[in-house]
Amino acid sequence: MTLRSIGKLLSRPLSSASKCSTCSGHQLILGLRNFSLSSSYSMRFVQFVNKTGGPQHLGVQLQQGGDIIAISVLNSRIPNTLKKFLEGGEDLLKKAKRLVAEGRSVISEKDVILLPPVTRMDKLACVGLNYSGHCKEQNKEPPSSPVIFSKFASNVIGPYDDIHLPTISEKVDWEAELAIVIGKKCKGLNNHEAEDCIFGYTVAQDLSARDWQKGTRNGGQFLLGKAMDNFCPLGPAVVTKEAVADVKNLAVRTWVNGELKQDGNTSELIFKTHDIVAYLSQFFTLLPGDVILTGTPAGVGFARNPPEYLKKGDILETEIESIGRLKNKCI
Amino acid sequence: MTLRSIGKLLSRPLSSASKCSTCSGHQLILGLRNFSLSSSYSMRFVQFVNKTGGPQHLGVQLQQGGDIIAISVLNSRIPNTLKKFLEGGEDLLKKAKRLVAEGRSVISEKDVILLPPVTRMDKLACVGLNYSGHCKEQNKEPPSSPVIFSKFASNVIGPYDDIHLPTISEKVDWEAELAIVIGKKCKGLNNHEAEDCIFGYTVAQDLSARDWQKGTRNGGQFLLGKAMDNFCPLGPAVVTKEAVADVKNLAVRTWVNGELKQDGNTSELIFKTHDIVAYLSQFFTLLPGDVILTGTPAGVGFARNPPEYLKKGDILETEIESIGRLKNKCI
Repeated sequence: MTLRSIGKLLSRPLSSASKCSTCSGHQLILGLRNFSLSSSYSMRFVQFVNKTGGPQHLGVQLQQGGDIIAISVLNSRIPNTLKKFLEGGEDLLKKAKRLVAEGRSVISEKDVILLPPVTRMDKLACVGLNYSGHCKEQNKEPPSSPVIFSKFASNVIGPYDDIHLPTISEKVDWEAELAIVIGKKCKGLNNHEAEDCIFGYTVAQDLSARDWQKGTRNGGQFLLGKAMDNFCPLGPAVVTKEAVADVKNLAVRTWVNGELKQDGNTSELIFKTHDIVAYLSQFFTLLPGDVILTGTPAGVGFARNPPEYLKKGDILETEIESIGRLKNKCI
Repeated sequence: MTLRSIGKLLSRPLSSASKCSTCSGHQLILGLRNFSLSSSYSMRFVQFVNKTGGPQHLGVQLQQGGDIIAISVLNSRIPNTLKKFLEGGEDLLKKAKRLVAEGRSVISEKDVILLPPVTRMDKLACVGLNYSGHCKEQNKEPPSSPVIFSKFASNVIGPYDDIHLPTISEKVDWEAELAIVIGKKCKGLNNHEAEDCIFGYTVAQDLSARDWQKGTRNGGQFLLGKAMDNFCPLGPAVVTKEAVADVKNLAVRTWVNGELKQDGNTSELIFKTHDIVAYLSQFFTLLPGDVILTGTPAGVGFARNPPEYLKKGDILETEIESIGRLKNKCI
């Protein structure tokens, strides 16, 4: 059974609803007991809270915008964060797969608030200058090895959260990026091993204050321009790698107020996902839940003529084909 | 009653020993019920495990190397990590103070393994070029505003842990640094407010792979040269600010194999601790447990003639006056 066919099953009308037995105020819709997953782990992990309140849960969707199977509700051994879930290893992944196959505790996406799908990661690392078009638009040579910088975990916001523009910058720019999510602890990998270390992918916006990132400010170090509050919208789901047909051929797009600004494809990546993971693992141990932003294609604001930056009221949409779309309002 | 006099009390011979009631195999020495603390929070927080095994605990010492009051053992509401303890706010701090005053559950430092005193922080930020002597030794002008870069939380190792030198670098250098530990969530502070946000201080080694940090490698971004595994020995304790008489006048020293290499003083800091905290809080929200390394004085290896780097077998010692000393062997 394919992801698509399971998704179709889940989108059929649901028959019964009841209160969740393990958390107060959590409306759960039960049903769909009679389908099974294929051997692949084609799942879309989300972190969410119910709109009526209550604690955070970890859930699985089988298609974009589809109903959510609240796996951390169904089994108290399944943590309510993706990071802790991944730390639990293959055993928890099998448990999750069984629960998804049972199809109980299904809740509609419209009844929840989606949080960032992974949070409190040890590393939020980023690759700069990883699309030739983005190098060209700023008159830079493509680098001979990946250029790595970082953000802080607390910069992450949810897929539909507002972006509170910082008062300290007047040049906040967009950068749509495919993000890798690490599934297991690993160090010193070769390219083949790197693939095994990748759990899945999500969508990221690498927001950047150009007036702090560029030039000689902060001694040329990107950090202050890259790591302000709200500077990493992430989500809506972490999609397992098995659910992505070809990660080397995914459209990467940004719209501002409905106008298409970036229209790239991961086929243009200078350093591919497994190259990046293998490279980083030479320097430090990668840990479950670590997130790596892989760089942005051409079309950013500062390289336009005249330059364009985000302003209050702007609607920023960021999409990676097959993975999902973020929609964030600047306030 | 001063910190010194309480410390003297704690170092007297202890009278009774028993098993801890809340964790297996944890030898506790009970006694000292009859002293009280002054109104200041002059404490030295440590994270530790018992040499005989068992879970991590949070403890308090009243002097360097003194006996440890295992506060997370005495009260199950006190978390076993300093980060979670700080997230609990003033209420937990008061509980800790009461427990310390009662003086129960005291264990000798020689019976434990000291871990890094704070771990899994959201931010491990660092200030570069913050001592005029360190600017001069590399022929750089002192910066007009702090130069900020970062490491990853997982780079942190304990005060007496071995440093596994990376195979990818041949130029690992030392940098003794006073580290600030943030006590509460804060944003957009002025200098006066910044002081209130500081919980305490600890000792850090900002280990640096000069062959990855310097020059054009990694596009000039410090991250890869600064954020390798083991690159942040930290500890031995986080000392509350009240226990430090004058943070603007503390000797900062590094020895390699007993030879003094750095001999600076925090009086030379270009940007002072509260300046740095106020500055950083303009860019991002500071969170309990965040650690900020404040820069290193002159005497680093790469600026020597000829340059010197750490090699296997070297013993690296790092000391901040009144706060503590790290001792790490390079392997």
